[in-house]
Amino acid sequence: MSLAETGEFGLIARVVARFGGGPGALPGAGSAVLLGPGDDAAVVAAPDGRVVASTDVLVEGRHFRRDWSSARDVGHRAAAANLADLAAMGAVATALLVALGMPPELDVRWAEELADGLAAESAAVGAAVVGGDVSASPTLIIAVTALGDLQNRSPVRRDGAHPGDLVAMAGRLGYAAAGYTVLSRGFRSPKLLVDAYRRPAVPYPAGVVAAEHGATSMIDVSDGLVADLGHLATASRVRIDVRRDAFEVPDPMRDAARALGVDPYGWILAGGDDHALVATFPPGAALPADWRVIGAVGEGAGVTVDAEPYHGPRGWDHFAS
Amino acid sequence: MSLAETGEFGLIARVVARFGGGPGALPGAGSAVLLGPGDDAAVVAAPDGRVVASTDVLVEGRHFRRDWSSARDVGHRAAAANLADLAAMGAVATALLVALGMPPELDVRWAEELADGLAAESAAVGAAVVGGDVSASPTLIIAVTALGDLQNRSPVRRDGAHPGDLVAMAGRLGYAAAGYTVLSRGFRSPKLLVDAYRRPAVPYPAGVVAAEHGATSMIDVSDGLVADLGHLATASRVRIDVRRDAFEVPDPMRDAARALGVDPYGWILAGGDDHALVATFPPGAALPADWRVIGAVGEGAGVTVDAEPYHGPRGWDHFAS
Repeated sequence: MSLAETGEFGLIARVVARFGGGPGALPGAGSAVLLGPGDDAAVVAAPDGRVVASTDVLVEGRHFRRDWSSARDVGHRAAAANLADLAAMGAVATALLVALGMPPELDVRWAEELADGLAAESAAVGAAVVGGDVSASPTLIIAVTALGDLQNRSPVRRDGAHPGDLVAMAGRLGYAAAGYTVLSRGFRSPKLLVDAYRRPAVPYPAGVVAAEHGATSMIDVSDGLVADLGHLATASRVRIDVRRDAFEVPDPMRDAARALGVDPYGWILAGGDDHALVATFPPGAALPADWRVIGAVGEGAGVTVDAEPYHGPRGWDHFAS
Repeated sequence: MSLAETGEFGLIARVVARFGGGPGALPGAGSAVLLGPGDDAAVVAAPDGRVVASTDVLVEGRHFRRDWSSARDVGHRAAAANLADLAAMGAVATALLVALGMPPELDVRWAEELADGLAAESAAVGAAVVGGDVSASPTLIIAVTALGDLQNRSPVRRDGAHPGDLVAMAGRLGYAAAGYTVLSRGFRSPKLLVDAYRRPAVPYPAGVVAAEHGATSMIDVSDGLVADLGHLATASRVRIDVRRDAFEVPDPMRDAARALGVDPYGWILAGGDDHALVATFPPGAALPADWRVIGAVGEGAGVTVDAEPYHGPRGWDHFAS
């Protein structure tokens, strides 16, 4: 049945029915929800008297393709993009709001499965979808806002890195970009890479752990490592150097790079969408378990790789063609 | 200069520069902002330990036309749609987040003026734009999320109306719908109606006042009075009757209706977009100054007009063609 047949209120009823939690939900997922979908607005607990909020938008053809990703995959990715932003502040997510623009001829099952993906990714971090809006739109577009709580910690900002700090990361890099390249060349494997593109494996708990261990700055890698470290370097007025030998190229990535004739470090250094977390820690800090050193902060400006300017592929500009 | 020439980060810099408040800002506008745009997420004060959150999406061609409304008008409307939802909970708005999908060929000035409208409408209620995201999109689309604070009051929900309650409203009805009809027939006046369509005059303070005066339920009129009272009636499991003689038809609306050959009560009873507030109050309640009685709550279901079923124009379904 198409959305035009279901109608706005029928669609809302079907989507809201999917937002009750789901398999894999943390105990207490959605426990911050004081008033969920169905009223003019939702009410969400903000225990420490502050709320952390981030918005990301996904546009069909630019951020996802329906022939490459299932609706459920797209839901996971849309939620993950926002939940990773909260993790990068050292916050714990509490709630998501979702605005959907969808073509009237779209099958309502696509919207329902999108909702399943949004709900499942949220529930895995203890959050719930509490509200949203839908409209017909010639372009399929998904805008998600995530809310979170800092649990009485200071937010870990982009501007706190100091010369001498260590640069460390949690999670993985280059997998999603490699999967994207594989798909764009018409292949459907290696599965490890394609799956990484479809659903990022975001190291959510590592954000809170980094905040507790005194991270001086943090960001999630969505534009590409060099580009996002560039945001940290600019905000903190420092230079950041990363070491190429800090990154292992996993075998399936090495094989795919060879088969496609590309440099896998292009994926690792410039690929976004894995939503790894990168942070700086004071010199000599004992890093938490999930974190590993990839470089150092110095005086100056910009990002270097092995102390040299980086001339490889650049990160993503969402207005470039 | 087009957005394709400005690029994603150039656009963000230009838009963020507009979010500093503006003329007409309340003293203290944006005072809840603890960390504004430029990091992974914003941090906003939630003084009473809860946050109220609402999302609305506007799609070009469905919610606005660029030849009917200026970018600034669209910014005002996009913010108002959300801010009215918070008012209808009895909350005070603190912050807005904005997700924009925009065609690469769009002039960057359009985006800047949209930002001006968003900032000005927010500042007028004491809120500020704290974050967002932009992407190229074939369809121009604006998704806004508003955050607010309940100041230790209970949220005024849709499900609290009781038989015997008074039904009252604040603000105006039918103006925006009349303006829309005028524009859609190719006219540009009466100015009162066209301006009402372009920028709603939302009675924001009336929401808090109603909550303080014991409103039992409340909603903002965005789908049309009969449709939105229908949401209240369904949630509260009551019947709501409104009296046609409670509504004055202002002269310009009467004149326009006569010239266009339509019934002005169609605009008043089924037109959305003015974002009037309607609420129920206990029997015998002394209504606050901005509120006037338009009907009563009884046993049963649905909405009637002068005790008769309503057969006029219906509210808006955003998937109907």
